[in-house]
Amino acid sequence: MLNEALKRQLTAIVGPENFQDNKASRLVYSYDATPQFQSMPDAVVAPRNTEETASVLKLCNENKVPIVPRGSGTNLSAGTTPLNGGIVLLFKHMQDIIEIDEENLTITVQPGLITLDMIHAVEAKGLFYPPDPSSMKISTIGGNLNENSGGLRGLKYGVTRDYVMGLEVVLPNGDIIRTGGKLAKDVAGYDLTRLFVGSEGTLGVITEATLKLVPIPETKKTMLALYEDIEAAAEAVSSIIAHRIIPTTLEFLDRPTLKVVEEFAQIGLPTDIEAVLLIEQDGPEEVVERDIAKIAALCRENQAIQVDVAKSEVEADALRTARRTALSALARLKPTTILEDATVPRSKIAEMVRAINDIAKEYDVEICTFGHAGDGNLHPTCLTDVRNKEEIHRVEQAFEAIFHKAVELGGTITGEHGVGAMKSPYLHLKLGEEGIAAMKGIKQAFDPNNIMNPGKVFAKSERKRVVVQP
Amino acid sequence: MLNEALKRQLTAIVGPENFQDNKASRLVYSYDATPQFQSMPDAVVAPRNTEETASVLKLCNENKVPIVPRGSGTNLSAGTTPLNGGIVLLFKHMQDIIEIDEENLTITVQPGLITLDMIHAVEAKGLFYPPDPSSMKISTIGGNLNENSGGLRGLKYGVTRDYVMGLEVVLPNGDIIRTGGKLAKDVAGYDLTRLFVGSEGTLGVITEATLKLVPIPETKKTMLALYEDIEAAAEAVSSIIAHRIIPTTLEFLDRPTLKVVEEFAQIGLPTDIEAVLLIEQDGPEEVVERDIAKIAALCRENQAIQVDVAKSEVEADALRTARRTALSALARLKPTTILEDATVPRSKIAEMVRAINDIAKEYDVEICTFGHAGDGNLHPTCLTDVRNKEEIHRVEQAFEAIFHKAVELGGTITGEHGVGAMKSPYLHLKLGEEGIAAMKGIKQAFDPNNIMNPGKVFAKSERKRVVVQP
Repeated sequence: MLNEALKRQLTAIVGPENFQDNKASRLVYSYDATPQFQSMPDAVVAPRNTEETASVLKLCNENKVPIVPRGSGTNLSAGTTPLNGGIVLLFKHMQDIIEIDEENLTITVQPGLITLDMIHAVEAKGLFYPPDPSSMKISTIGGNLNENSGGLRGLKYGVTRDYVMGLEVVLPNGDIIRTGGKLAKDVAGYDLTRLFVGSEGTLGVITEATLKLVPIPETKKTMLALYEDIEAAAEAVSSIIAHRIIPTTLEFLDRPTLKVVEEFAQIGLPTDIEAVLLIEQDGPEEVVERDIAKIAALCRENQAIQVDVAKSEVEADALRTARRTALSALARLKPTTILEDATVPRSKIAEMVRAINDIAKEYDVEICTFGHAGDGNLHPTCLTDVRNKEEIHRVEQAFEAIFHKAVELGGTITGEHGVGAMKSPYLHLKLGEEGIAAMKGIKQAFDPNNIMNPGKVFAKSERKRVVVQP
Repeated sequence: MLNEALKRQLTAIVGPENFQDNKASRLVYSYDATPQFQSMPDAVVAPRNTEETASVLKLCNENKVPIVPRGSGTNLSAGTTPLNGGIVLLFKHMQDIIEIDEENLTITVQPGLITLDMIHAVEAKGLFYPPDPSSMKISTIGGNLNENSGGLRGLKYGVTRDYVMGLEVVLPNGDIIRTGGKLAKDVAGYDLTRLFVGSEGTLGVITEATLKLVPIPETKKTMLALYEDIEAAAEAVSSIIAHRIIPTTLEFLDRPTLKVVEEFAQIGLPTDIEAVLLIEQDGPEEVVERDIAKIAALCRENQAIQVDVAKSEVEADALRTARRTALSALARLKPTTILEDATVPRSKIAEMVRAINDIAKEYDVEICTFGHAGDGNLHPTCLTDVRNKEEIHRVEQAFEAIFHKAVELGGTITGEHGVGAMKSPYLHLKLGEEGIAAMKGIKQAFDPNNIMNPGKVFAKSERKRVVVQP
């Protein structure tokens, strides 16, 4: 609990309307999109600018009060659950586009801006911001930066990190620093820009970002390839890349996912086949035509039973929507949906999907798999019920087995969702104790009082997926 | 000086043939490509593998002996000068290509590999590693990683950092860690991969790297545009980008540079004009044709007095070679050549070139300017004589003024050469004391005994360009 003096000081900084500690406000920010993590913050604070943010951090640092920066709370790793109480920091007063610079192809934004609003503003200028996390309709750019969000276009265009040129960051000691700039090249010291991207709010608070834009692709085409076995689909993925074609999007949906997506979205997807690849290419018209024709031929050569190229943007959009609604569609079926993002080298996808199915059988749990096949970034999704303690225990064991397998295949425990609280017990599988020690050194250097989003990234000894605090 | 016990221990680790402390060996590694920085190491050590590297680091850490990892020593910031003595670490036994993975489009290499050898091996497979530092014929990939090297293709393809997927690193405490992997997406903890890239050997020793490859572009075309004034050339650069064309290469040479390059290379470059743009586009044939035609038209619209598209690869290669020899050509003219790399947002190039010329006049020094116009990465190059103490003082003042101006225009003190010892006195201009303090925290966390390349990145109080130790 915050003492009265601290409440008064915080209120003085942000104004009374931007400090809330009534139960209703605290309850709203006690959880995020991650199933079954909940913990009450002591207060909710919305600074109006960078200077106020710095004052809040300095004060909380002096008083050792935890701070959890939060965008829209769409993350799936319990990254924004205030596990140790303290303050949830909102950015509702910091959601401006500061500048679109058409000469240097950059956009400068505040963290509270909704990702899709930014994308629309950029596209109105004929420019393109490629990262497209599935949550972009409601996620904020600040959340994307802290999580280093991925998306469907990662294969060709990379992830959020690859588009961050400069940041303004408030450190726990109240210092305001600026990293990078509108600069294609900058090697003045360590790469703090990319250290903060993906640091999950554990090192400081990002208050402004300058992002790289590229010219918008002239055109794009979308196609669907249907497979009667998963291996053939995975081989098609390998074959496309082996022929030196890098599509924008190369998505995979397995049979159980297809079935529920079709039930939900009703766009005429086949439900009696084993796997679907949703493939998109963008670029100059001639190149897109040529690539799509080649990709279609390669899919057929690799035993696709059907290949359909979308005839219109409406048709293409229906296919994309189908993929984007996968999680919502799955979430309708059971009280609890746990979506993971184990990731492997692209060449190991078939092996990983097979392993996931074997593991699901072994632990007798229901897992549907879809994801970014071109990135090796899979989303095994478990449909379960958290009230069934015995089943949840098996789910936990199944996911642990999946993480072990991913790392064994040269992969990672999280491709784009972040470690948060949910995956911290498994981080050592990927990094080893030495790697974790190195990261803890960085954390200690920036945040010696551990006020920034404590309980995330680094695990306590316990391994529990489900932490419900009263 | 190393004591006898330590010498014996080091010799036992790497074998007697890989430990040298005679004066001749030490002299060879007492300097790098940076003019007038020299300092003798105590010994030169060449470990044969990662484990030996770890043993050397652990031993040196216990004994607080400085370690300077060194590739080919082509860096221009005194980054590999052993300013505090200690050990120069060579990678002559670690220069293998471990694997080219055509399914995942990666190459895994040891640090001692020559950059161009790697590029040739990759191109033989129809693949492409875009970063092309001007020194690539002799530089090592380990050096490129530690310096986050740029090159001529940065505008379209980015820099070394953008192609590093995973690293094996030995930390000062002897721990061996692995970061990243063959993974398009990986958010398991902080981005140590990019923290090590560009850290100039001050945090640990990179012993292996997995790099991203892309399909080799189908074709490329090269052209030259001649200008009677610098503003017009800069406007052409802005205009090309404003028309949403991103060329591979967009290089700038001013009149004095042109003159000496032509004298040196004799390829028929005009020497009576103010500026030249060397422009290259690569990609699918139709796109390259179309882009080059558009670029040529835009150059003419922006007052180019002549535009020549290379008619053959031989002709194109001559133009590229002309640009690549700029430094060597300039270096012939005076005893000392000091090449800087102040970098500004692309839109500020004309202003920066004008400022450089004004500053050269003000301090009465001779500065030629060439560089990567598309990146805003300029190379103001001073022709001088280090024996002339009075002139060198003016040169120093001129460069300080140039750095101030670059930062004032939203730029940086170094785009691709690194901070090293040479630019550390100016780092605060870009980062502020708060930014430097944050970086020092990271340094302290990884290397509490300051054994890794001490005297680099972070300045002592003194500001001296020229440090000659006896």
